[in-house]
Amino acid sequence: MEKLLVKTLNGESVERPPVWLMRQAGRILPQYRALRASLSGFKELVETPDLAAEVTLQPVDELDVDAAIIFSDILVIPEAMGLPYEMIKGKGPHFPRVIESAADIEALNSSEEHTLEELKYVFEALKKTRAQLAPEKTLIGFSGAPWTLLAYMLEGGGSKTFSKARKFLVQEPKLAHELLEKLSQSIIHYMRAQEAAGAEVLQLFDSWAGLLSPKLYQEFAMPYVKRILDALSVPTIFFAKGAFFMLPEFDSLSANAIGLDWNIRPSFARTQLSKGRVVQGNLDPAVLYGRADNIAEETHQMIRAFGGSHVVNLGHGVYPDTPLEGVKAFVNAVKSYQY
Amino acid sequence: MEKLLVKTLNGESVERPPVWLMRQAGRILPQYRALRASLSGFKELVETPDLAAEVTLQPVDELDVDAAIIFSDILVIPEAMGLPYEMIKGKGPHFPRVIESAADIEALNSSEEHTLEELKYVFEALKKTRAQLAPEKTLIGFSGAPWTLLAYMLEGGGSKTFSKARKFLVQEPKLAHELLEKLSQSIIHYMRAQEAAGAEVLQLFDSWAGLLSPKLYQEFAMPYVKRILDALSVPTIFFAKGAFFMLPEFDSLSANAIGLDWNIRPSFARTQLSKGRVVQGNLDPAVLYGRADNIAEETHQMIRAFGGSHVVNLGHGVYPDTPLEGVKAFVNAVKSYQY
Repeated sequence: MEKLLVKTLNGESVERPPVWLMRQAGRILPQYRALRASLSGFKELVETPDLAAEVTLQPVDELDVDAAIIFSDILVIPEAMGLPYEMIKGKGPHFPRVIESAADIEALNSSEEHTLEELKYVFEALKKTRAQLAPEKTLIGFSGAPWTLLAYMLEGGGSKTFSKARKFLVQEPKLAHELLEKLSQSIIHYMRAQEAAGAEVLQLFDSWAGLLSPKLYQEFAMPYVKRILDALSVPTIFFAKGAFFMLPEFDSLSANAIGLDWNIRPSFARTQLSKGRVVQGNLDPAVLYGRADNIAEETHQMIRAFGGSHVVNLGHGVYPDTPLEGVKAFVNAVKSYQY
Repeated sequence: MEKLLVKTLNGESVERPPVWLMRQAGRILPQYRALRASLSGFKELVETPDLAAEVTLQPVDELDVDAAIIFSDILVIPEAMGLPYEMIKGKGPHFPRVIESAADIEALNSSEEHTLEELKYVFEALKKTRAQLAPEKTLIGFSGAPWTLLAYMLEGGGSKTFSKARKFLVQEPKLAHELLEKLSQSIIHYMRAQEAAGAEVLQLFDSWAGLLSPKLYQEFAMPYVKRILDALSVPTIFFAKGAFFMLPEFDSLSANAIGLDWNIRPSFARTQLSKGRVVQGNLDPAVLYGRADNIAEETHQMIRAFGGSHVVNLGHGVYPDTPLEGVKAFVNAVKSYQY
């Protein structure tokens, strides 16, 4: 039994890079769409361990990727802390209440006992998934990073600029740090419990990193990201989308791999990170809209360009309307590659 | 009469950097909000030369910035070609019809005569503005760049990923090039006519550059950007938001200055561009939400970090809810600076 993803993250030599896709459990799969159509909503799927485990396993069955990532959402943390979210069809996440005052932050519960109780559906889903997953496949757990979660909790949903959340950092730095502190506590409790429930790798997503200047990222994101990563035991992946400008700082993090988006050229990443640093990514998701032969060619080019110490993935979550044939061409191109 | 912006763009030495703000003519000004409230909509303002000239001049009167940028929209080009847009309150631009076929592209009119006829309201607004603008102030005209306009014409409005437009590049490269070709023709006719109408500097905005991979940007954006910039006579500024990964290639463009967004550290920009290259930007717009003393400090830090050959601006358009005092603190910090 050889876990290709874990070996790669641990810096061991491998015959080919491991491959999985962000958002691989989702609308790209007919199995997912069929199950989803029979349910009341996205959250029913997330919160029902048997169903979450089922869709987590679907891409492993269908695509034979090297890892399963637990079907969940980064917004389960704000909800567990006391700020519930809704997922609105065609629009994305929405928070009926947002953070507006010191009292709102004070009211959030980040205790270990509360976090574990509120999120036990995730831990059950992890246990059920691990029990059914082939031994050579790796189970990945995840969480959103503090800044990204703060951004949603202030803004109330998606935004082009997240200027309300950024205004909060600038105008209320003390409150912002209090909220980020509480978020970090919850996230650490949550991710440690994911380890205990069978997650063998943990990924921390800072999806809105690219909205911050280097200065704000350094002050309001880095200290919390560092603390969370340092608190974990299993191999970790840190993916801060759009934060090319922080790569030299990310190099010093304890994460086993640094995720890269599709704007970043492999050669650039290699100049910003120390030699042998494991990276994850970063094919343009739009490439998978193309012909199979071109997908294979671009995937091989990318693998060659990174030159090892590489977990193959897209540079972002796979788009829901990606043809399944394109996804398969991508995965198969990696699996046919030999270092 | 000394035009600080033109001198800086021409590489002449200046006592302080020039300053203006992207979107300075707009909701940050009470004068603008009052005028706008009396009108039927955004497009009435854009398409009525007297009104467009009036709001173009407002920030020069109120803030004493070094340049006026004509009040208009990048979407006037698709509309002139035959694809009208609407501006929906609280949502942004919307195209009732989008590009769906070769015939839709074929139907677009990019001839010089047609372009100049359709957009004569912009040229009139430029003439009226120049007639009222103090001689030491510079009048800036602009256009959207082909890829960004294509993105809206395919997608029909704003989008988080513009995956429909990116899919079009991947699946229909020949049609994409045909559309980009036509867009480039219209843009060149339009920008040359802006020069003739009194624009002393022209800025080309590639607002969605950051959504493309280096490979797609190289193929579907660079050749057209280069051709447009080469066709112009007055000093030019090229701003491709999010395209840090293309800075070495941008260095070879004929643009007099390269615009930078707020993710880019001055020190990084200087390593990517040749010595003495004029840059524009790039204070984080969120800084203007802060206290005046902090705004002045960060503005001065930025000016020192760029070390000359610099047009001061934000790294993106000023946010509509920015306090006017913050904007004034920014402008005044530049005007009190001495190299």
